[in-house]
Amino acid sequence: MKTKITGVGIYIPPKIETAKDIASRIGKSFDWVINKSGVLERRVSSIDVDEMGAVAAKEALGNGSQPDLIINASGVPKQTIPDTSTFFQKALGFQGIPSFSIHSTCLSFITAFHTASSLIQSKIYKRILIVSSDRGTSGRNFDEPESACLLGDGAAAVVIEPSIKQEKSKLLYYNMQTWPSGSHLTEVRGGGTNKHPLDPKTTISDNLFSMDGPAVYKIARKKVYKMLKKSLKATRMESDDIDWVVPHQASRKAVDAYVSVGGFKEKKVINILPKFGNCVAASLPMALTTAINDKRIKRNDTVLLIGTGAGLSVACAIIKY
Amino acid sequence: MKTKITGVGIYIPPKIETAKDIASRIGKSFDWVINKSGVLERRVSSIDVDEMGAVAAKEALGNGSQPDLIINASGVPKQTIPDTSTFFQKALGFQGIPSFSIHSTCLSFITAFHTASSLIQSKIYKRILIVSSDRGTSGRNFDEPESACLLGDGAAAVVIEPSIKQEKSKLLYYNMQTWPSGSHLTEVRGGGTNKHPLDPKTTISDNLFSMDGPAVYKIARKKVYKMLKKSLKATRMESDDIDWVVPHQASRKAVDAYVSVGGFKEKKVINILPKFGNCVAASLPMALTTAINDKRIKRNDTVLLIGTGAGLSVACAIIKY
Repeated sequence: MKTKITGVGIYIPPKIETAKDIASRIGKSFDWVINKSGVLERRVSSIDVDEMGAVAAKEALGNGSQPDLIINASGVPKQTIPDTSTFFQKALGFQGIPSFSIHSTCLSFITAFHTASSLIQSKIYKRILIVSSDRGTSGRNFDEPESACLLGDGAAAVVIEPSIKQEKSKLLYYNMQTWPSGSHLTEVRGGGTNKHPLDPKTTISDNLFSMDGPAVYKIARKKVYKMLKKSLKATRMESDDIDWVVPHQASRKAVDAYVSVGGFKEKKVINILPKFGNCVAASLPMALTTAINDKRIKRNDTVLLIGTGAGLSVACAIIKY
Repeated sequence: MKTKITGVGIYIPPKIETAKDIASRIGKSFDWVINKSGVLERRVSSIDVDEMGAVAAKEALGNGSQPDLIINASGVPKQTIPDTSTFFQKALGFQGIPSFSIHSTCLSFITAFHTASSLIQSKIYKRILIVSSDRGTSGRNFDEPESACLLGDGAAAVVIEPSIKQEKSKLLYYNMQTWPSGSHLTEVRGGGTNKHPLDPKTTISDNLFSMDGPAVYKIARKKVYKMLKKSLKATRMESDDIDWVVPHQASRKAVDAYVSVGGFKEKKVINILPKFGNCVAASLPMALTTAINDKRIKRNDTVLLIGTGAGLSVACAIIKY
């Protein structure tokens, strides 16, 4: 699909919380935190997801025209109704632009990017703004040390437009699979009709992030590897043809696996986990934006976006940037 | 876009709650309830949104093959993470099918239908299952009588596939607008980072449905009328060329406006509000499924899907069924 990323933006909250800070809150040592999560520090936002996303969106839009569609691709909403895309638009000061949310937890950005590419391919929209903004630190369960020391806050935004005839930018390949047998492995059980706020049986921990990290890793490693092999075969590429791997920043082990299991050179894998932690759906576009801004990813490079999300879902997209 | 609805399904919970029942709960008279909402009775579900949606989805899929994509297009999720599409797939007994959610509150179905049509047009998927399932009664605020007497529970599902060469079925037109200036008019402020469950300032009513019905109607009537005129002009059609109007079942006044303001003949407007109330995002596909099942909507009829949602958003789609 002939689509091109024409703008990227990022919001990094100023407040830093270190591994040492979190270690004392979860009753573990600094070494334990580093070993389990690989997160040296994370950001903690004092503004809400809509304002965070709007900062990133403004940067992505630059001096260009307003978008003709706004897609929220975050992991957790600002509130149940209306959907967060409305609040991004409000914070940006726009009116009348169609907007909605695409949600597949940590994979929301890949799913939204693919969907947006299809909408551009269908000539319905010409300038789509995708915003991922998450405040994972507000949903941490300090009684679950492994996930609590992983989460961070951040936002990123991307503008995509049709690529014109002579341009090489495109979405080359996309694949997604969802395995509900793993739906209990990563959850926030509250926030909907299941563990309703009015139900006296709903507990505080039902409203917090819960993840069985080792079980997710065990399943995900195999599924991601299979998808990787299938994707390269379908596009007739070798690992070496991929210039950059931009993974969801799930955990140290998960990011490292693209080297140890996936066989990619370490310097090719964009790894922002030590500095920002797992920022839910915002992690992947934050990593992408970081590597574009520091000029590692250059125009026409072949970039693999890949990751896992609650569901359990696995997805990847190969783009010519 | 050459897409065709090849299956529809509906789930109507067996338990009925009448206008008389609700009148006593909100301290109003039967006449007040009928006058304000037009809802004679509604269904109250004892099973959760995933099971409700799966019943409708099974009917829509019939004896055909598994879908290659599942889109959840509901107003309120089962839980924050994973997204509800995973739970539909789980309840259907499938594994490995890509799935995600599209959310634009009461307009989620129209947005998902349009997006799915684009994905089919782009030849990415061939059999997409869209499921809208909502339990609005679980979020009623009995201190806000006007919205409390409006909401009901229900689910509907639609399967869409490419229409083959000689078939006339297609999506003729789509339009959507979002006006964040009206974002405070319809809300569930809880369920996300805004009024977080752990924030001691979050109140019970923050987790309940709240709507300023008269204000929504005042703005929506004008915006819907404008969109209607624009849509007919863009497709070079007159009101008489539309065989059926399938509106979101927002309220008696909102559904009646398609006759009194929109100028459509009453018998053309599918109105299931008196029997089922406003079932959030499920209302529109429930109305569509009802009119297809009772053979009012016939193959190749021109059908206008239209409505408003929290945002404030307005959207419509014109399809050749």
